[in-house]
Parts: sequence; C-alpha cells; structure tokens
Amino acid sequence: MTEAEGLSDWLRLSLTDGVGTQTARDLLNRFGLPEQVFSAGFAALQKCVPDKLARMLSAAPSESIAAQIKLSLAWARQPGNQVLTLADHDYPPSLLSIADPPPLLYVKGRMDLLSRPSVAIVGSRSATQQGLQNAARFAQALSDAGLTVISGLALGIDGSAHEGALSPNPTQGSTVAITGTGMDRVYPAKHRALAHRIAIDGCLVSEYPLGTPAMAANFPRRNRLISGLSQGVLVVEAALQSGSLITAKSALEQGREVFAIPGSIHSPLAKGCHQLIRQGAKLVESAQDILEELRWQLPSISDHQVHSAATPKHSESDALLEAAGYDPVSVDDLAERTRLPLMAIHAGLLALEMQGQIEMLAGGMYRRLR
Amino acid sequence: MTEAEGLSDWLRLSLTDGVGTQTARDLLNRFGLPEQVFSAGFAALQKCVPDKLARMLSAAPSESIAAQIKLSLAWARQPGNQVLTLADHDYPPSLLSIADPPPLLYVKGRMDLLSRPSVAIVGSRSATQQGLQNAARFAQALSDAGLTVISGLALGIDGSAHEGALSPNPTQGSTVAITGTGMDRVYPAKHRALAHRIAIDGCLVSEYPLGTPAMAANFPRRNRLISGLSQGVLVVEAALQSGSLITAKSALEQGREVFAIPGSIHSPLAKGCHQLIRQGAKLVESAQDILEELRWQLPSISDHQVHSAATPKHSESDALLEAAGYDPVSVDDLAERTRLPLMAIHAGLLALEMQGQIEMLAGGMYRRLR
Repeated sequence: MTEAEGLSDWLRLSLTDGVGTQTARDLLNRFGLPEQVFSAGFAALQKCVPDKLARMLSAAPSESIAAQIKLSLAWARQPGNQVLTLADHDYPPSLLSIADPPPLLYVKGRMDLLSRPSVAIVGSRSATQQGLQNAARFAQALSDAGLTVISGLALGIDGSAHEGALSPNPTQGSTVAITGTGMDRVYPAKHRALAHRIAIDGCLVSEYPLGTPAMAANFPRRNRLISGLSQGVLVVEAALQSGSLITAKSALEQGREVFAIPGSIHSPLAKGCHQLIRQGAKLVESAQDILEELRWQLPSISDHQVHSAATPKHSESDALLEAAGYDPVSVDDLAERTRLPLMAIHAGLLALEMQGQIEMLAGGMYRRLR
Repeated sequence: MTEAEGLSDWLRLSLTDGVGTQTARDLLNRFGLPEQVFSAGFAALQKCVPDKLARMLSAAPSESIAAQIKLSLAWARQPGNQVLTLADHDYPPSLLSIADPPPLLYVKGRMDLLSRPSVAIVGSRSATQQGLQNAARFAQALSDAGLTVISGLALGIDGSAHEGALSPNPTQGSTVAITGTGMDRVYPAKHRALAHRIAIDGCLVSEYPLGTPAMAANFPRRNRLISGLSQGVLVVEAALQSGSLITAKSALEQGREVFAIPGSIHSPLAKGCHQLIRQGAKLVESAQDILEELRWQLPSISDHQVHSAATPKHSESDALLEAAGYDPVSVDDLAERTRLPLMAIHAGLLALEMQGQIEMLAGGMYRRLR
C-alpha cells in the first residue's frame, strides 16, 4: 500500500480500542474500506458496534492514536519495511483461508517468502541437543528444496529452525519469523542477532502494533498465523503441555498437515509428538517424508507458483461471482460449481468482499450484492 | 488326548512326507478323523491326493515313521508334556481362527497359558540395551496384569520378553515360547537355561516333530503362530528388514492388533517400528496403552474367561448347525444369523468339521452334511 492516506485509515482501524479482528471484518463487510467506516457517521455505526466504539470511530482520532499512526507510517517508509492490509495484492494468500486473518501485517524483509510453499517447524523452548539438531537439519533441507520455513522466534526449536533455514540465496527458500511483539521489539532478547539476520535474508511478520511488548496472551493467538501461513506444521520436540500442541491444533482446524518426529518413550519431550501421532499426525523421519507428503497437495511445489495459483485472478473472481448467483451460497457449493482450489476461492471471496461485490452471511454463507 | 491309538494316527498323519497343514485339513475334511484316513484305502485316497501319497497312507507306516511315533508317544507321557490335536478340547481357541492351524502342537509346561488373553512381544535379535529393557518391562507389566506374553525364544527382544514375563505365580500371566525346532531341541543354545525355566513356569510350543533342527525356512512360518495365538503383537525394536515385520504382517492378516514402540529417527532399529506406525500400527509408550486398547476387544480380560467364551459350547454347535441349513453358507452369513463372536464360529465350524457334520467348500463356504 503506497497510498499513505488509505494506509493511515487501516492503521487507525486496527489501533482503535475494541476493534479486534472480528469487529474489523464486520465493519469492513458493512461499510467497505476503512475510510468508509470512518465517514459512515455515528448513527450508521451504532447499528453494528457498541455506542462507545461508534462514538470513537465517528470522531477524529485520539492524539495517542494519531501519534501511533505517524510512527507506523514512518516505520513503513524505511527500506525493507512494509505494512500489508487485507486489501493488498501482496497479502499472503494462505492467510486468507483462515477463519480470522489479521487486517494488518507488519512485515520486515523478503516479502516474497510469504507466498512460497511453507512448512512451520515448532517445538519446545527447552529442547535437547538432538532436538535442536533435528530442527536445524529438517529446516535446512526444506529451505534447500525451495520452501519457506516458518517459526516463532522462540528459544529452542524455533531458533534452530530459523538458523537452519536462513539462506541468502534467493533461488532457495529461507525463513519467516512470526513474532508476538511489535515489529520494533525483539523477544527473546537473546535472539536479537538472529532477528537482524532474518530481517535481511528472511522475513519477520507481526500483526501487533509497533511498541507491543511481549505479553503471554499474545503468543497462543500468534500461533494461528504460524500454522495459517504454512501448508504443514512439523513438531520436533514437545512436552505434553507444550504450546506447540496449540499450533498443531490450530493447523488441524485450518486444514493444514501436521507432522511429528518420534523419539524415545522415556523422553518427556517426545510425549507431545507421540500424542499427535496417535491423533493422526504423520510420523516423519526425514525432510523427504514431508516433501513427499506435500507434493501431493502442491503440484507446483517445484516451480514456486503456489502464489499465482492461490491469488485470485480476474477471471477467477468473475467465475466466482457468476457461480454465486444471488442466493446465499456456501464455499463448498462454490468449489463444486467452479472447480477452483479452496484457497483460490477463499482468496477470491475476500477480494470480492473488500470490493463490496459480495457479503458474508451468518454460518459461512456468501451472497452476491451487485 | 489320552487315547494313544488316536494320537498315534494323528502323529502318523503329521509325520507323513507330503502331508502339510493344508493336505491334512483336506484329508480330515473328506474322511473324518486320521484313523478314517488310514482305513479309507488307496482308491478313495487317490481321489484327493497324488498317487504316491495315497499309496503311503493306505499302506502300513514306514519303519522310520513307526519309530518316530513311538518316540513321540513316549515324550508325551513324560510329566508336563502334551501333544494337542485339532480335535482336542484344549487346542488353543485363538489358533482355530487362523487360516492354517497346525494339526498337532507339541506342548511343554503350563498349558493353561494358551487360553489366556495374550500379547506377543517381538523384535530385533541385535537389540539395544534400552530395547531389551523396554521388552522386559512391557512383558512384566502385561504378565502382572494376567496376560500371557508370547514370543519366539530368539536372542535379543524375544529373550528379554520371556524373562520379563516369566512368573511362577499362577494368578498372574507368564510366558509362552513358540519354537521353530522340535520340542526336544533348544535354539539358540544360549537360551537353554531360559527354555528350561519356561518349561516350568511358562509354556513351550512347537508344531514341528521331535528332532526337527533349526532350519531357516521354519522360522517365518512359525511367526504366524506367534501372532495367531495373540490378541495383539508388540514390536519393540526392528530394522526395516526384520523378521518381526513378518510377524506384524501376519498379525494384520489374522485380524490381530499391531503395536509398536517409537524411537529416535537416527536409530536403524526404530525404522521398522516407525514404518509400522505409518501403516497404522498403534504407537505405544507403556504397557497400559496396550491394556487399554485390548480391553475394548476383550471385555473378559480381567477375569480370564476368554477361553470359555471362545471355545464352542454344545448349544453353540447346535446353533451353528441350525443356522447353516443345507445350502452352502459363508462365515459372515453364520455370524449374522447366530450373532456369535467370530472366534466361536471358527472354533465351532472346525469342531463340526472334525465330527463330520459339515464340510468346508472352496472359497471358504461351508455345507452341512447331516
């Protein structure tokens, strides 16, 4: 988004207290772009949000929000930085298929990595040496094969996965770190140098406003982006109470593959992986196992054309509109009528929604408006 | 079988060159008990076996067979020894449900162990220390829970499983070794002392005549009895080419559960287990996992009444005969008509076949004769 005016409205919407992902989507569904939300007026806003929020949205932005917008726009102008909105063509297509894509993403580094086929590698913060080595080796093999390796910048498995996948070679994959803090902060501090290297040869992504400190509540929520950006999630070592199991659960809810590395039955850090395997995760012994499994689902994995396949083309939008008709229709119906891949349908629907051509109804149904 | 005359005919049948499990069953199906086979005469025998075999069966037994019968009868008279025939009430009910139950079993030790709920534990001959310890601990826990632990007396995992499960306490389970040699031989020699202890507190079983030496060809075939006697097979450590995978395959063909213990992806001895898990075997971390899984299938696991549930009662035979009618009928039809458990049906059919009341037709169909 080069047009600062449009972006500042997106920023303001996401920075307003009481506007979470769902409320933002409701408002955008009803009014169109953020600027139309702010010009809608109290009476119209009051019909879909609480009075207090309607008052804030129809008034001028507060001083603190105005200052934060200014700061964010300045940040976005720095080389390598980018703020992507849901309406951007570069918004990661795989996130469009999850239940609650963030309206804004703060991105630093190689944005092209966000549209490659991706595998997340997650696991324990207090991993064993063998676990760390496994994470790094799997990550390197996947990156060598051209995939993006996604993780959460945490200590332990996350850090080793980033290290293993980092590559300055643009024909290979590299790594994306999804952080739970604002993009101007690094957590944990021990990973400051790693984060700087990822900003150059990889990519850092956060949905949280600049300045957001590390807060326990934000990390589990962040995990849905780790799985959502990926075609599959590999759990390397995880105790039974590990946060990695939340990421695996979220992957299943999003229809992603879950892979797990087995280990000794006497290792507490294998128990989480074993539980996942018993629940249906694929047991993997090598990166090759993952590549073979994903090749089934990503015929384009070798030529990195997933992005173009998943991003709605103009003709796909037309096909969707035509297939939708003017009666409420489900995504399954659309899939059957258009024969388009699900990811393309989700992406297309969101684009059409943003353009005000269709609306989402209760129960995941869609209706054509024009 | 106390009647030596009947037993010597069973022995002669099984000792005759050219009479394997299938031919024995064909002959018994057609003529009834072994004594009726030998009195049938050349002309009748010629209709179902090659001329040379028909001549042998209709003549007097050769000197070497007569000597072997004498030896076997003397062996069977020694305390603790037993030769079980397919017609015996004590023949293990679980073996009656496999495709090719041996006509004769040479048994030494606690015969009651053959009718308890059983789990086989198998694995590599060149196991790791951890693998040996796992085998012994799982075996002990299963034996403590009242189960019989079955294995093949080989070096490595087999030996540790027998050691772990051996118990002189009759209220607990113990162990059964299915050997690939005659019951008067011990292979490997290193397990001579173990075999002697199993003969006292556990049970040794072989389908091979006395004097049969260790022959490579006999061991894979023996594996079908290890799985067939069990409700489930646990593979502890196995390389990709391990004979244990043959036992697991045979377990699947026989409708038994397969369990596998995972391990490090860097251990060649975990690869066989991992392959099994990928193919659907249940990943287990403790003996408790196995007990929980089997409890689903063995409601009587706690009171050891599996034998009485599976052995055909007189009224069950009547019900089967009545349900069979005089038209060819499949086991599935009989299961639907009688609502009896499959194991009881197989056991009942075999008993009725032995009594000459029904015959088995091609394609696994049965027809009532009287």
